[in-house]
Amino acid sequence: MRREITGFSNPLLKEVRGLREKKLRKRAGLFLAEGLRIMTEARDAGFLPEMLFRVKDREVHALEIALEAAVLVAGGDVIETSAEIMAKLSGKDNTQALVGVYRDHATALEDIDRSQAPIWLVAQAMRDPGNLGTMLRTGDAVGAGGLILIDDCTDPFSVEAVRASMGAIFTQKVVQCRWDDFLTWLRKGEGQLVGTSLRTDIDYQSATYAAPCFILTGNEAQGLPADYEDECDLRVKMPMRGKADSLNAAIASAVMAYEVLNQFRRK
Amino acid sequence: MRREITGFSNPLLKEVRGLREKKLRKRAGLFLAEGLRIMTEARDAGFLPEMLFRVKDREVHALEIALEAAVLVAGGDVIETSAEIMAKLSGKDNTQALVGVYRDHATALEDIDRSQAPIWLVAQAMRDPGNLGTMLRTGDAVGAGGLILIDDCTDPFSVEAVRASMGAIFTQKVVQCRWDDFLTWLRKGEGQLVGTSLRTDIDYQSATYAAPCFILTGNEAQGLPADYEDECDLRVKMPMRGKADSLNAAIASAVMAYEVLNQFRRK
Repeated sequence: MRREITGFSNPLLKEVRGLREKKLRKRAGLFLAEGLRIMTEARDAGFLPEMLFRVKDREVHALEIALEAAVLVAGGDVIETSAEIMAKLSGKDNTQALVGVYRDHATALEDIDRSQAPIWLVAQAMRDPGNLGTMLRTGDAVGAGGLILIDDCTDPFSVEAVRASMGAIFTQKVVQCRWDDFLTWLRKGEGQLVGTSLRTDIDYQSATYAAPCFILTGNEAQGLPADYEDECDLRVKMPMRGKADSLNAAIASAVMAYEVLNQFRRK
Repeated sequence: MRREITGFSNPLLKEVRGLREKKLRKRAGLFLAEGLRIMTEARDAGFLPEMLFRVKDREVHALEIALEAAVLVAGGDVIETSAEIMAKLSGKDNTQALVGVYRDHATALEDIDRSQAPIWLVAQAMRDPGNLGTMLRTGDAVGAGGLILIDDCTDPFSVEAVRASMGAIFTQKVVQCRWDDFLTWLRKGEGQLVGTSLRTDIDYQSATYAAPCFILTGNEAQGLPADYEDECDLRVKMPMRGKADSLNAAIASAVMAYEVLNQFRRK
């Protein structure tokens, strides 16, 4: 249904603004995605918002018209409002003309078909939403099946993570689980678990990767716990020519993923 | 000199807090780096803070004792203060027990010795301080000589960029210049300019790179302007297997840099 909100005190605004907080997202089972590019990406992947907020009285892109039509046909709401109210809704730092409210769609480990993709990214205790969203985006680029989040990671459905994912939150499967459950599931089928480590002499380019390849990246500050590394089928290291023996976690994961993809491309 | 600040109203605090703003950083020629790890990295690279703020009355790491001694020997100030005052100084989100005030050290293009390193990273209109800092960190890891910032980039000496660089702001040369000046300088000597592009069929793994290799990455949203791409000696593309034809700019730069490094390693 198409309708309009004109007052700042409308209770729906408070509810939607609340989705910037993890607790309220969990309770509602909803999350926010902003901007036409990401929302079009979502639609292409089969996801429509339950509510679409839009600033009225401005020039409209053809993709936005298509998006709105799809939302209405699917029984969702298109809610028109002023730029001022939208700024309150979407945060002053990065006001968008479009904000969508989506049903969250985390996947259970058991519902993953590992044979669907040659690469899966796995992140352990990833704390930074920008890193997490970037990993989703990288996963999309390398043709990964999804991102498996181990232990206490930052929420993949936060506004910051969704933004950094550039829409990949909708194209990549997202799983949240504990390490033990992941290992048990992994060992029930095929799958090579690869971790980057400083405790190995195997260069990441001399190793041989096998699909489905699960690329495990540890926490930004601590890296992988030693006992997690021990469970890997393969521990490899990337060359480090600098003063600091480290890369940003999302960078390390991407460099690994492209190496694995490059090997698979040569086969 | 070692001294203590006990009052929130001390004018030095306001001055140092002001270094979170670009305008005041420029005016003072100073910037902030936080935390023992980054400040130790700085010291190893030959940079000491003019002022070192530290929270007093807590357990102290041996590296911090060494750092303080070095600052005092060099004629700098070690300023002790309370945790509350430090929180005000360093921002509530990420309070550190140590904050250093450093002289900024951007390098002029003419002072770059391109033969010093096989890889140089070049970023055009990079807007995100996290991306910029991450590129510095990646540059350090691949043994790059530095990061050349073209056109209007975010300030490499901002707190966010310095933090994301994990100390590489001190180990990598940082140059800020306009495109025309860069090109003029580049063409005066050896150097292969490589850009990633969607307007090419050359796979980034099939190209041959030559040192010194300048890896050019465009703005996060727009990519490289077409006429900048045209100036590249080599335009290459990375495989994209997903729905979106794009990678985060810092990720694209790192994947390219590791490919170039890997080729050079094989020689």
